[in-house]
This record gives sequence, structure tokens and C-alpha cells, in this order.
Amino acid sequence: MNRTLDEVAKLIGGTVVGDGSVVLTGVSGIREALPGQLTFLSNPKYTRYLATTRASAVIVDGSCGSIGAAGRTQLLATDNAYAAFARAMELFVDREERRMSGVHPSAHVAPSARLGADVGIGPHAVVLDGAEIGDRTMIHPGAFVGAAVRTGSDCVIHPNAVIKLSTVLGNRVIVHAGAVIGTDGFGFAREGERQLKVPQLGNVVVEDDVEIGANVCIARATVGTTRVGRGTKIDNLVQIAHNVVIGEGSIVVAQVGICGSTEIGKGVVLAGQAGIAGHLRVGDGAAVGAQAGVTKSVPPGEQVSGYPARKHALSKRLNACIQALPVLLGRVRELEKRLSKLEKEDEC
Amino acid sequence: MNRTLDEVAKLIGGTVVGDGSVVLTGVSGIREALPGQLTFLSNPKYTRYLATTRASAVIVDGSCGSIGAAGRTQLLATDNAYAAFARAMELFVDREERRMSGVHPSAHVAPSARLGADVGIGPHAVVLDGAEIGDRTMIHPGAFVGAAVRTGSDCVIHPNAVIKLSTVLGNRVIVHAGAVIGTDGFGFAREGERQLKVPQLGNVVVEDDVEIGANVCIARATVGTTRVGRGTKIDNLVQIAHNVVIGEGSIVVAQVGICGSTEIGKGVVLAGQAGIAGHLRVGDGAAVGAQAGVTKSVPPGEQVSGYPARKHALSKRLNACIQALPVLLGRVRELEKRLSKLEKEDEC
Amino acid sequence: MNRTLDEVAKLIGGTVVGDGSVVLTGVSGIREALPGQLTFLSNPKYTRYLATTRASAVIVDGSCGSIGAAGRTQLLATDNAYAAFARAMELFVDREERRMSGVHPSAHVAPSARLGADVGIGPHAVVLDGAEIGDRTMIHPGAFVGAAVRTGSDCVIHPNAVIKLSTVLGNRVIVHAGAVIGTDGFGFAREGERQLKVPQLGNVVVEDDVEIGANVCIARATVGTTRVGRGTKIDNLVQIAHNVVIGEGSIVVAQVGICGSTEIGKGVVLAGQAGIAGHLRVGDGAAVGAQAGVTKSVPPGEQVSGYPARKHALSKRLNACIQALPVLLGRVRELEKRLSKLEKEDEC
Repeated sequence: MNRTLDEVAKLIGGTVVGDGSVVLTGVSGIREALPGQLTFLSNPKYTRYLATTRASAVIVDGSCGSIGAAGRTQLLATDNAYAAFARAMELFVDREERRMSGVHPSAHVAPSARLGADVGIGPHAVVLDGAEIGDRTMIHPGAFVGAAVRTGSDCVIHPNAVIKLSTVLGNRVIVHAGAVIGTDGFGFAREGERQLKVPQLGNVVVEDDVEIGANVCIARATVGTTRVGRGTKIDNLVQIAHNVVIGEGSIVVAQVGICGSTEIGKGVVLAGQAGIAGHLRVGDGAAVGAQAGVTKSVPPGEQVSGYPARKHALSKRLNACIQALPVLLGRVRELEKRLSKLEKEDEC
Repeated sequence: MNRTLDEVAKLIGGTVVGDGSVVLTGVSGIREALPGQLTFLSNPKYTRYLATTRASAVIVDGSCGSIGAAGRTQLLATDNAYAAFARAMELFVDREERRMSGVHPSAHVAPSARLGADVGIGPHAVVLDGAEIGDRTMIHPGAFVGAAVRTGSDCVIHPNAVIKLSTVLGNRVIVHAGAVIGTDGFGFAREGERQLKVPQLGNVVVEDDVEIGANVCIARATVGTTRVGRGTKIDNLVQIAHNVVIGEGSIVVAQVGICGSTEIGKGVVLAGQAGIAGHLRVGDGAAVGAQAGVTKSVPPGEQVSGYPARKHALSKRLNACIQALPVLLGRVRELEKRLSKLEKEDEC
Repeated sequence: MNRTLDEVAKLIGGTVVGDGSVVLTGVSGIREALPGQLTFLSNPKYTRYLATTRASAVIVDGSCGSIGAAGRTQLLATDNAYAAFARAMELFVDREERRMSGVHPSAHVAPSARLGADVGIGPHAVVLDGAEIGDRTMIHPGAFVGAAVRTGSDCVIHPNAVIKLSTVLGNRVIVHAGAVIGTDGFGFAREGERQLKVPQLGNVVVEDDVEIGANVCIARATVGTTRVGRGTKIDNLVQIAHNVVIGEGSIVVAQVGICGSTEIGKGVVLAGQAGIAGHLRVGDGAAVGAQAGVTKSVPPGEQVSGYPARKHALSKRLNACIQALPVLLGRVRELEKRLSKLEKEDEC
């Protein structure tokens, strides 16, 4: 659906700089945009494209010093360009991924499962005994919802995802394809040479507005609950072990691994491929760098990186020191020479 | 089912310290336990909770020096508190995850597949031509068992797991949800700029009592067999490449990657996110630290860590040296100053 | 099917050294081969097995200096032993994995989906509205093909793989089990404490002859296209974020993670568990070492390794320096002693 820039500004907020009557037909990235399209500028790395983009309008941060640089395009100045663009995208798109409604005849839904209003269950999906599915929740084809699972309303369980026994999902939870929630924790008690399986009797609770990426694994607690707090977003291929607790509003980037019983606070960012050892605490607002290996608890608000993870500023300093090692070696060699010379002279 | 502590001691062994007539109603973690519950203490990190736990009884290691510290709770002293707790858990729990039995009408089972006694095959599971499924093995909903796969008895194939062509599973093997066993190895022969696919004609053999985590990938051998030895336990999201051989009783923690043709011995521990290069040998009883990058074979019994992986003691020493680099730099600078001064005086 | 070595040479090329009339019954690895089998020698690590292999014939590189070392076996000297072996394997193997043909009655295929000639769709597979499936493409059991997906001819979608909305696959693309192509990118716009989901409206395009490993995740673009270039091969458990572009003929080894909007050139090798930060460029022909953490763009042809990734030669040198740190510390300590002595003498 086409809209003028003025109409967009009215719907999502912001101040038009330029011609508000320009007609917009869709959205695109700043480099790929064609005339008629709306784009955005948020990452300073892309500022240089503002002068060359073919987009008809660019959403920018109001504080954006670069506004002057735009020659041929209209601007929409907002408080938060990326968020504004997210809202604008919804205006232009005719979603092809249609809402499912009703239970597909090929789905297997246990008679004792309770389905809310307007639930959609796709072909070959499975919902077992005693599961409760909240209103408007969609269970895509091939997804598995185990016995006694409870989901809130407006959840989306994508194709072939697996939600096991007794897992609880809040409202508006998104579980992407292939994710496995509630698999057994990795618990074994060594008896001599043998590993005795420790029953994993707890569950997983995922609070409201959490998004869980494709092929993520979240293990059920041995006893008690593995918990993902409200509004936390988890990227693809992340491993969350048994009895982990993650606070609200945290960001867990792809391929992160969190070992058993570790607590992650609120508003924490764990960057890609980071690993957190077990039985630790990462405090509220802390940030763990990509590929970092966290071996000790991290205080609230602290930024750590590297292996073993250290305060980020220290890690950077140590990296600079390492980079300078060949020079340092040379300096020590030089010192040895000069000192030997001095010693020899001294002897004379 | 409720039991007294004395009854539990009789069933799982151990010596009661305190009142054996206390009635236990369930199990829990030491921090979360409520009155009436049984818990355990194994990790010394949690010793301090012994004085404050509300549990009615705590299973402890007999050698546990902290036994004196328990004020309000009964103790059950055992040789191996964690193993004893694992057994105790089985006493208290009424498993909700019911055994499947029979072949669900929506499952697809090829006529030439042979099913043992009491096999359970869930909705939408697929078993292809010539597969042989051992007695009491359960194939959960949506799982795929390829042509000519053979499983032993009492295996559990969790939802949406994929067991491909000619894979052999021993007895009591557990394959968690979304795991893929027997996918093609990553083999290509470079011809100029083109990568020619090398057919992957071997298979995967998984021996008795192995547990394979969710979304794990185990590649079939190019020729011959990729093998996982008896009693080995593999955590979620692990990658095992073609022609890898893992010995008996090893532990492979989440997100580990093992490259092609590497041999892992018996009783080896590979900690989380470790990577092992191809064509190496990790000897019996070796231990590889979390996130370690193993680029050379590891002798039996050796502990290695870091990237590139070195003996753990050396890695720790080098890490301490790195941590001290800013100070070392200062010392070298100081030496240079003092030496310059001396040289100047010398000249005079 | 049995063939003489002469016959094999005729079919795949190469020069027979020894008795070309020897009858070959199958293929195997050089260590495991039995009399009657054909094997190959390509990795110099295995040269020592040439003297002891029981294989009846070994394909070797013509330039192979070790040809003289083979006592009891025939040789087939070729330009490219591994590629020749790949071709030879096809001669000996009676593939058990039969071609599927036709649409299995339990599959769900939307009426508006268009299927090419000889398409095979397995039990419980799902093909949604408007999907177009090219000739001879096989969609294995439990696989999901979303609305408006287009595949070329001769593709193979393995069991339980998920190809989401609007993804485009070229010809001869292989998607292994459990892979998820076209899942939402991980995009959120922070608004205060809240993370606003950014709609992911782009798609994924996978060009001809690409192979995608088991449980790989490839995210759809926010706007525009996430692209995997012709002939690129991706191993298991790899994460490819939204708007990534990978060039032709690249190799991405298991568990690699590539962050959003990064461009990988042609003929690039990303070794296992490497991580590439977002918005970077890895130039044509570059090679990134295993577990490397790439934080800056990599020029064409450059080899980098370590964390943070540096030129490989420098990384090796720095590693050697680190290894020598305890000695360096000793040398500085010694210098301090000698200098103090000298200073004292100087004072006297």
C-alpha cells in the first residue's frame, strides 16, 4: 500500500525535512533502496550512503549530525530511527505468511489438550495430553508440544520446534524453527567408570515477550526451573543448560553457551559465541564480548571480554601488550647487550 | 509417594544422621527446597546452604567435612551424594512422560521395517525400509528413522530427531530432540575452482548406553564408520565430523566440535565449546578445557586448555604472565632509564 | 559391482602402476582397507600406511614422491587423488538411499504449490501455498517448505529441514536434516528498556550447487536478501545472520558464526568455530583460522587467526612470544639484578 511521507510521519511520528508529499511504495536498505522506497540511517558506518542513496526518504535520528549531508532525498527525523523504521515496515508490508486458523486435519492433538480461541495448528503438528494452548497461539507444521505444556496467548511456535513436557511459555513468546525447549539437562553422577543418568525432573519457564532463535536448546532443570525472563531475546543455536536463570530484557547472541545453574541478570548482553561457566552470576546490565570465556562471576554493569574473560578495558590493554611483545623482546635483548657492555667496561 | 528417610536409606544406601522417621514428600535443590523435601550437597560451592536449607533431609558425601554444619536438617551420609540423589529422585517421582506403546496410526512405518516387542512409535514418526527397531524402543513424534537403520532395545529417539541411512544404535541409547545422526560428512575434493562432493558411504555406530543431546550433529564416515563408544555422553549442539572415533565413557559438553578422523580415547572430558582439529588423537583420560582449541594430539591423562591448547598448568602460567604484562612493560621501561643513566655516568 | 583396476582407470582417468588386472570389489580408507578394495592417499600424514595397507590398489597423486614406498599394492597415479577417489566411489556403490518419487499420501502439499517433473515428496513433508518445486527435487520426510519458496531442479531437502517463506534455492542445492533457512533475523530496536522486534521482511537466496549442513541456521534479511553464492559449501551448525552475503565457492566449516550484514568473498575458507563480527568484509580468497574472532575486515587473500584475528604469521609469532613469557620474565629479573649490582658498584 502506497503512502506519502507525511502520512507515514503522522502514523509513526517524526518531523519531515523536505517534501512530505513524496509517495512511498515500500521499504529497503540504504544501499539497495530504489526511488519510491523508504529507508533508515542508524549505524554511523552507513552515514556516507546518505548522500548517494536512491531512496525517496530516509528515517534518521533527530540528533543526527549528518542531516545536512542529504541532497536528493527527504528525511524523517525521529528520536530513534531504527525503532521508527521497524514501525514503518509494518505499514508497507502485506504479510504473505498468512495466519493459520483452526486445527489442520493432519495435526495430532490429544483429546485432553485444551485449545484457546482462534488457535492455529498446522499440518503434522503434535500436541500431547494435557497441554494448554492460549488464545491465538499458532503452532506451525511439524512442531511438537509435549504433555502438560502450557502456552500463553499470541505465541508462535515455528515449524519443527520441540516444546517438551511441562514447559511453560508466557504470552507473545516466539519459538523459531528447530528450537528444543525442555530437553533433559546434561546431568550424570560418576560411579566408578560409569556415568549414572540423573533424572531431569524440573521444567523450563519462558516469560512474556521472549523470542527464542532457530535450533536453540534450553534444558529443563534437574529439579526446579530453568527460566528465561520477560522480554529477553535469544538468537539461533544458543545453548542454555539446566537450572540457568536469565533475567528480563537480556540479549543472547547466536551460538552462546551458558552452563548449568548460572544466573544471568537483567539487561545483560552476551555477544556471539561467548561461553559462561556453570554456577556463576552475571550481574544486571553486564556485557560479555563475543567469544569471551567467562570463568568468574561478573559484577553488575561490567563489560568483560577475552579468555579468560577480564574487564574489557584490561583485555584491550593486554591485547595491545601482546601485540607489542616482539618489540618488547627486542628491547630486552638490547638491554642485555648494553648491560653486558657496561659490565665489561666496569670490569676493566 | 511419601517415604521416611529411613526407608530412603534402605533403598539407596547410606547412613542416617538425625531423625530417620522424618517423612519426605519429594526432592529439590538445596536452595529451593521446602520442608518435607529431600536434597543433596555435592558441590562445595553450596556447602554454606547446608545451615540454611529448609529441606528435611540432605544427602551428603560421607567424607563431607561440613556435616557438623547442618543444624536443622537430617543428613544421609553416602559414598557419592550426587549418585545417591539421582537414585532417590526415581523414588519420588511419578513420571508424567508416559511410555508410548504401539504404532500411532499417523506414523509412517515401511512394510519392510522390523519392530521388536513393545516398540512405541509416535504420531508422524517415520521409519523407512529395512529398519530394525529393538524391543521397547520408543520413537517419539516426528522422529525420522532412515532405511536400514538398526537400533537396539530400550532406546529413546526424541521428537523430530533424525537417524539416517544405515546408522546403528546399541541398547539403551538416548537421542534427544532435533539431533541428526548419520548426515553426510563434509567432504569435498577441490578441482580447480570447483568443489567436487565426495560421496559419504560409511555409517555411524553408536554403542550401548550413549546419550546424544538435542540438535547434535554426527556425520557418517566417508568410508568405514564414525563411532561413539559405550556409555559416552554428548551434550547439546555438539558437532562430530566424519570418521571420528570416540572411546567409552567420555563426556562431550555442549557446542564442542570435533573435526574429521580425530580419535578421542576413553574417559575423556571435552568441556564446552572446545574444538579439536582433524586427524588428531586425544588419549584416554585426557581433559580438554572449555573453549580450548586443540591443534596437536593430546597424550593420555593430560589436561590442556587455551588456544592453541597447551598443558593446563602452562596455560595458567602463561595467562598469569599475560596479566602481568603491563607491569613487565613498566619494569623494562624502568630498566632502560636506569641503564641510560648509568651509561651517561659511565661516559662522564 | 566388481571392476578391474584397468577398468577403473579407464573410467576415472590416471595411470596404473602395477597389475591392472587386479579385481576390485569396493572402496575403503587406507588403514581399514581389505584385499580387493580400492583406497586413496592424499593427506601426507597417511603416507606411512602405503607400505602396510591391505588394499589391492591405492589412488595416489601423480606427483606423490612416495610412490616408490608401495610394496604389495597397485597404484593408480592421478592429478588429484582425492577427486579421483570421489569419482571411483560412485562406481562401486549401490546406493541404498533410494530416490523417492511421487508425493507420499501423508505429505501435505498446498493446492497452489507447483511441482516440477519427477518431484519426490516424502511422508509428513509439508509444502505450503505458492511454493514452486523444480524438476527431480526431493523433499524428504518431515521437511517443511514454506509459502512462496522456490527451488530449482535436482535439489535435496533432507528430513525435518525447514525452508521458510520466500526462500529461493538454485539448482542442485542440498539442505541437510534439521537446517533452517529463512528464519527471522535477530533484529531489535531498543526503546528504553524494551526491545522492539524489527520485522524481517527480506528473504534468503541460495545459488546453484550450494550444500548446507545439518542444523545450520540462515536468517532472512531485514530488507533485501541474505545470499549464499554458487558452489559454496556450509558444514553443520553454522550460523549465518541476516543480510550476510557469501560469495561463490567458499567453504564454511562447522559451528562458524557470521554476524549481520557481513560480506564474505569468493573462495574464502572459514575454519571451524570461527566468528566474524557484523558489517565487515572478508575479501576473496581469504582464510580465517579455526576459532578465530574476526573484528576487522580482512583483505583479499589474507590468512588470519587468533582472537582478535591477526595475520596468521603474526598470530604465530605472538603465540611463540607468549610461550616464551616465563623465560622473558626471568631475563628481566636477571637484568634487574645485574643492573642493581652495577648501580651499587657505581655508587661506591
